[in-house]
Amino acid sequence: MINKRVDENLLKTIKGYGERKAYKAPFTYQPEGSVNENVESLKGSVKRTKVVDSLEEAIRNSGLKDGMTISFHHHFRNGDKVLPMVLDKLAEMGFKNLRVEASSFTKAHEGIVKHIKAGVVNRLGSSGLRGELAKEISNGMLGDYPAVIRSHGGRARAIVEGDIKIDVAFLGASSSDCMGNANGVKGKSLCGSLGYAKVDAAHAEKVIIITDTLVDYPNSPMSIPQTQVDYVVVVDEIGDPNGIMSGATRFTSNPKELLMAKRVLDVMLASGYFNDGFSMQTGSGGASLAVTRFIREELVKRNIKCSFGLGGITKAFVDLLEEGLMGQLYDTQCFDLAAVESIGRNEKHVEVSADFYANPFNCSPAVNKLDFVILSALEVDKDFNVNVISGSDGVIREASGGHSDTAAAANVSIIVAPLTRGRIPTIIDKVTTVVTPGSTVDVVVTDYGVVVNPTRTDLLERFEKAGIELVTMEKLRELANFIVGEPKEIEFEDQVVAVVEYRDGSIIDVVRKIKK
Amino acid sequence: MINKRVDENLLKTIKGYGERKAYKAPFTYQPEGSVNENVESLKGSVKRTKVVDSLEEAIRNSGLKDGMTISFHHHFRNGDKVLPMVLDKLAEMGFKNLRVEASSFTKAHEGIVKHIKAGVVNRLGSSGLRGELAKEISNGMLGDYPAVIRSHGGRARAIVEGDIKIDVAFLGASSSDCMGNANGVKGKSLCGSLGYAKVDAAHAEKVIIITDTLVDYPNSPMSIPQTQVDYVVVVDEIGDPNGIMSGATRFTSNPKELLMAKRVLDVMLASGYFNDGFSMQTGSGGASLAVTRFIREELVKRNIKCSFGLGGITKAFVDLLEEGLMGQLYDTQCFDLAAVESIGRNEKHVEVSADFYANPFNCSPAVNKLDFVILSALEVDKDFNVNVISGSDGVIREASGGHSDTAAAANVSIIVAPLTRGRIPTIIDKVTTVVTPGSTVDVVVTDYGVVVNPTRTDLLERFEKAGIELVTMEKLRELANFIVGEPKEIEFEDQVVAVVEYRDGSIIDVVRKIKK
Repeated sequence: MINKRVDENLLKTIKGYGERKAYKAPFTYQPEGSVNENVESLKGSVKRTKVVDSLEEAIRNSGLKDGMTISFHHHFRNGDKVLPMVLDKLAEMGFKNLRVEASSFTKAHEGIVKHIKAGVVNRLGSSGLRGELAKEISNGMLGDYPAVIRSHGGRARAIVEGDIKIDVAFLGASSSDCMGNANGVKGKSLCGSLGYAKVDAAHAEKVIIITDTLVDYPNSPMSIPQTQVDYVVVVDEIGDPNGIMSGATRFTSNPKELLMAKRVLDVMLASGYFNDGFSMQTGSGGASLAVTRFIREELVKRNIKCSFGLGGITKAFVDLLEEGLMGQLYDTQCFDLAAVESIGRNEKHVEVSADFYANPFNCSPAVNKLDFVILSALEVDKDFNVNVISGSDGVIREASGGHSDTAAAANVSIIVAPLTRGRIPTIIDKVTTVVTPGSTVDVVVTDYGVVVNPTRTDLLERFEKAGIELVTMEKLRELANFIVGEPKEIEFEDQVVAVVEYRDGSIIDVVRKIKK
Repeated sequence: MINKRVDENLLKTIKGYGERKAYKAPFTYQPEGSVNENVESLKGSVKRTKVVDSLEEAIRNSGLKDGMTISFHHHFRNGDKVLPMVLDKLAEMGFKNLRVEASSFTKAHEGIVKHIKAGVVNRLGSSGLRGELAKEISNGMLGDYPAVIRSHGGRARAIVEGDIKIDVAFLGASSSDCMGNANGVKGKSLCGSLGYAKVDAAHAEKVIIITDTLVDYPNSPMSIPQTQVDYVVVVDEIGDPNGIMSGATRFTSNPKELLMAKRVLDVMLASGYFNDGFSMQTGSGGASLAVTRFIREELVKRNIKCSFGLGGITKAFVDLLEEGLMGQLYDTQCFDLAAVESIGRNEKHVEVSADFYANPFNCSPAVNKLDFVILSALEVDKDFNVNVISGSDGVIREASGGHSDTAAAANVSIIVAPLTRGRIPTIIDKVTTVVTPGSTVDVVVTDYGVVVNPTRTDLLERFEKAGIELVTMEKLRELANFIVGEPKEIEFEDQVVAVVEYRDGSIIDVVRKIKK
C-alpha cells in the first residue's frame, strides 16, 4: 500500500539531500552487520533480551575471527576473572593470532603468557605490564610484534581515532540488565567507575557485557548504555572482591615520605596556583596521600576550596568532597572501597570516561583544566624525562597510566620520588625508558631537595621568593652517586620488545630485550 | 633530546600495528581542524576558556561557509531565542544557502521565513513545521529543495550515520561553564532534558554553546560534555520562560476525552501486557493525560509497578515516579515545569538522547522495550496508516515526533482520536500524508468504538474474551461520513514541498504544493 506513494521516478525529482530510497516495510533497511535481525518480531512478542546462554554463544554470534582485535578493561584489577575466562574460552574454541588491547594488565592476567606461547594471542597493547607477563615480554616472547604501551589518554585517543579498531570488546560489569545497561556500582563484585570500559563500548564493533549480577530492566546508572551492547553473558563470578580493591589505604608514617609530602605542599603553596578554586590530581602512593592530608589542613586554614579532583580516586579525595572542601570528583577509576561506595551515591562524584579524562584529540579533556598533578617516578634524568615503566634492570614492571597526560596539561606537574630506593638511584643521567618527556615536567621533589625545570622561570622566581631551598639535577645526581655508587649500565639486545606510545600516537621510546 | 631515541629506521622494524611516527614534542601532532591551537601555551598559563566575546566571533572561528549545514534543538520550544538570534546574525554576516537541521520548529521560529526569502537559508530538516513557516512551505517557498520531515529517532539515526553532516551546531543551554559543560537544569532559562541536543553535540564538526548563565567550572550534570564543545557564547537571554514551558497541564473534563481514555485503559488491561513491570509512553494531550490517571488507579489496585516511562515527560509521569508506581523515567524532552524540576533532582529521572530513545540503527533504542504507546492522530485510514503532519486541507501543521518510532517498536501501539473534529473526519479512506505506516499500528480507539489491526490476531482474541466492543474501520468510516459528509478531495499541484522520511531513512510519503 504505502510504497506506492513514493517511487524511483519521484525520488529523482527530490534534490538537495543526497540519494534517497523509497520506503518498503518498517524493518527492511538495517545497518550493516546489525545484530537486530529479530527486530521485526519485536511487535507483540516476548520483549527483547540480549542475554545469551553462554560465553561461547556470544563469541560465536559476535563474528570474531583469527587475527582480530579484542579488548578488556582492568577495573577489577588484581581480582579480575573476566580476561582469564574469555581467553581460556577463546583458546578452547581454537582462535589464533588475536590482538589483545587492555586498559592495563594486572597480576590477575599472568595466564596470558600461556596463550601467547600457544599462539592464541600474538599482539598486546596496554597501559601497564607487570609480573610474569612483563618479564616474559622483556625476554622477547612476543617476537616480531612488540607490545604497545599507551597512556590512558593515549589509549582513548587511539580508539576514538581508529588506530585501535576493536572488533569485540569483552567488558565485565558489576551489574547489567537484559539489554546491556551496565555499571560498576551494583551487584556482588563492585569496581566503581567503568571509565576505561566506556571508551571501548562506544567504539567497538561488537560489545559483550559479562556480569555476575543480572538486574531488572532498566538498570541505572548506565555507565554503558544498551545502545552500545550486542550481547549479555551471565557468569558465576566476574571478580574476586579481595583482589578488586585493596581497602582504604593506610596513612604513611614513613618519615621520608612525610618529608617529601611536606615539600610538595610547600611547592604548591609557593607556586601561585594554590588559590580558591584550584584543581588537582594525586596518585595513590604514600607520599601522595600524605600530601592530600596536608592540603586539607591548608584548605581549612585559608577557607578556600578545591574546584575538582581528577583521576583515579581514593578515600582521601572522597573525604575532601564530603567535607565540602572539594567541589566535584571526576573519576575514571576507583582506587579503594570508599571511592566505590561514594561514586554509587554522591552525584558530585562523577564517573568519566578515559576520553573525557585525557584524550588529547577531543575538544578538551579534563586534564587541560588541572592546576596541580603529583606524580611518582621510577627514574628521572637530568633532562627531567621520567620513566614509570621499566626497572633499573631494564625489565618492564609498571604502568604508563595518566602520567604523561597530566604532566603535559597541568599548570604545575610535580614528580615526587626518593633520591634512592635501596641500592638503586632514582635520579640518573638518562632514564632507561622515557614515558613522560622532560619538557612537561615542572618540579621534582626528593628527600634531598627540590629541582625546578629551568624553562619554568615563573616558578623559579616564586620559589626563591618563598624561600624554598632549590637544588640542581647535577647536585642530586652527584649525591645519589655518592650514596649508592655509579649504576652499572644495563645491556640490551637489538630486539624491540615494547614500544612506548606518547599520548598523541607517536613513538617516544622503545624497550629492548634484556641481555642475559 | 627525546626524539633521538626513536628514528625512522627503528620505526620500520616495528610490525603489527600499522604505520608509526616518531615523537617530536608534546603538542606537535594535532587532529585535523583542531581548535586546540593554543594547547601548547596551556602549561603555566591562565587556564583555558572557550568563552568568546560574541556570537559573531564564535561563528567566524567555527569556519562556517555558505551552503553548509547548521543545527538547533527545540528544547526552549515557543520561548526559544537562540535560533532567531543566530539566523539574524548569520544574515547580517552575509551567509547564503544554509541548510538548517532542527529537532523541530516552533512558533518562535517563524522568522525563518524571511531568511528563506532572502536566500540565507535554502534547505530545512525538522520533525515539525507549524504556523506561518509551515504555510509558506506548503505554498512552495522552498522551490527545488523540499523540507525533510523526520521522526526523533530518524533524525538521530541520520546524524549518527552521517546522512546529516552538521558543520556547526548552535546549542542553547540553560547553563554552561567556561569549557562547555552544559545542561538544561541550572540557570534562569530552564528547559530540563537536552535529549535532542546531545546527538548534535556528539556528531557536529563544531559545537557552539549559547547560554545566559555562565557558572563556575566544573558544571554538573554535563548533559553536553566539554569534550564535544568548541566555543561558548554568553548572551543576555536564550529564552522566554513563559514560552519554554506551559506549566502543569490541566486534567481534562471533556467527556469525549474521558470516554476515550477509559477505552484505552480497557484495551491495555485486556491486552495481556498490563503486568507487573510493563512500560509505557503517553503523549501530552488531554486523553493521554487522563489515561495516565486511570492507569495510576489500576497500579494501586493491583499492587503492581510500571518499570519505566519514556519520551516527552509530563507531571503525570513524574507523579507516578514519586509515588513509587514507576521505576524510572527516560526523558528526551520535558513537557512541563514539574518535569524540569524533577530531572534536576531525581536520579531515577534520567536524561537520555534521541539516539538512546529511538534511533533504530543502534544496538537497541529504548522504544524497543516499550509495552504500550498511546499516540494521537490527525487522520487514520482504513489501512491503519496515520497522518500527524498535515491537516485535512493538505497544509503542513504539526510534527512527526516519536510517533512512527514508538509505533514500530511497542508491543501495543494505540492511536486515540475522536471520529470527527468539528466538520472534519479523522477516520478516512486514505490519509493525506503517511507518517506512521499502518502495519505498525495495533489499535485505534475512538469515541465511537475500538478497532484492532487484523494482523494482531492475539489482541483480537483477548479483546473479544474481555468483552471489549470492537468495530471495523469500514464501520467507523461510514459513521464519520454520516456525521460530517464525504470530505472533499484536496487538490495539489505537482511540486513536492516536503518529503516524509521514515525512521530508517527511506521516503514514506511526500507533501505537495496546495492548489489555490
